[in-house]
Amino acid sequence: MINANPQRINRILIQKTNHRDKKIENIIDIAKKNSLPFSFLPKEKFKKFEDYSHQGIVAYVSPVEYTELEDFLAKEKQYKKVVILDGVEDPHNVGAIIRTCVCAGFDAIILPKHRASLINATVEKSSAGAVNHIDIICVNSLQNVITTLKNNDFWIIATVMSEADNYYDIDYTGMNFAIIMGGENSGVSSTCVKNSDFRVRIPMYNDFNSLNVSNAAAVIIYESVRQIQKKK
Amino acid sequence: MINANPQRINRILIQKTNHRDKKIENIIDIAKKNSLPFSFLPKEKFKKFEDYSHQGIVAYVSPVEYTELEDFLAKEKQYKKVVILDGVEDPHNVGAIIRTCVCAGFDAIILPKHRASLINATVEKSSAGAVNHIDIICVNSLQNVITTLKNNDFWIIATVMSEADNYYDIDYTGMNFAIIMGGENSGVSSTCVKNSDFRVRIPMYNDFNSLNVSNAAAVIIYESVRQIQKKK
Repeated sequence: MINANPQRINRILIQKTNHRDKKIENIIDIAKKNSLPFSFLPKEKFKKFEDYSHQGIVAYVSPVEYTELEDFLAKEKQYKKVVILDGVEDPHNVGAIIRTCVCAGFDAIILPKHRASLINATVEKSSAGAVNHIDIICVNSLQNVITTLKNNDFWIIATVMSEADNYYDIDYTGMNFAIIMGGENSGVSSTCVKNSDFRVRIPMYNDFNSLNVSNAAAVIIYESVRQIQKKK
Repeated sequence: MINANPQRINRILIQKTNHRDKKIENIIDIAKKNSLPFSFLPKEKFKKFEDYSHQGIVAYVSPVEYTELEDFLAKEKQYKKVVILDGVEDPHNVGAIIRTCVCAGFDAIILPKHRASLINATVEKSSAGAVNHIDIICVNSLQNVITTLKNNDFWIIATVMSEADNYYDIDYTGMNFAIIMGGENSGVSSTCVKNSDFRVRIPMYNDFNSLNVSNAAAVIIYESVRQIQKKK
């Protein structure tokens, strides 16, 4: 797996030992080359894997095949619609957002390798199987992705809590765009906000400023759908 | 509790015994009079309550005070916005929908006593505390509620999966309205659909017809907000 399809590996755990054998060195090399997150754990933390013949190495594998950004960009389509998850950690939220993206006819979900819930069994279940119906792109750096998207005629829309346009006051039609949704606690990171072309917020009432991130995503995603359908 | 505030009781469990004593008869009477769901359980099912001195009776109590429909209708407000949950069973979904209602400035949530997740600790947590910021109305019959709402100048909007107007093609402004969201598997019941004034659907793409109910609710709720804000 690690040689044939390293991009499907979400995380590697390596049991700490007194000597590092060749096999482990080799895996670390491949992990580094492919920017796969790996960590060393003491023997007692490996107890939970004792039903598997793990030989001191465990890899979490995604139930879906990830798509490479370049392959996605190379696909022919007039206007592409993408959601970027910037640190969304709850797998139920990640799953629900993917489900909404598929229902709404979005083209891809982009998530960072190191600061998010990657695609695991819980995400797959919460997505009601939607993970198999959309391109899922897993990247090392959201900054690089944003730059690449901009160079490919995408407009970047960051969702924020503070002063910004209402999400229904910008025009989603006639362009490629990527909507960045922030993590449950931290929101969209300041660098992503800075590099975005539009900043939008969902108006809140009742002095209660706390929409669930998957619900917020649904609201904005379907507003873009509404505008696009109305324009046709 | 059962005498002072019976409406806060979600469900009563009574341990089966050989003889029915006065106290139990009395509780059953009050339960019947207040339409509180109750059931008899064999002794072994009461094992899990053994840490409480339960004396053969356990009641599940809502963490919030429910509002009476008449009290809600008597409140002065120009246009009221309500969500009715017709059999939504997952407490996480109920909580998330309440949270969205509060964020969007909706006025009440109505849910049936007998076929839904009532307000419990999971709902409260999923709502991020929103259950304390909105009128929650718990009723025996959704049919009666719909009739009462109609008699009080409310328009009833049912969400369906089949042929119907797109949710963004109806006008939510200048009226009291109630949006009915259906259960995760069954959707809005046919009697509720029949008694509704509008039937709306959320358009789906990718042949993937499966939006999570809390996300679907968020989409429609915020479309009504958008229209009302735009009209101002």
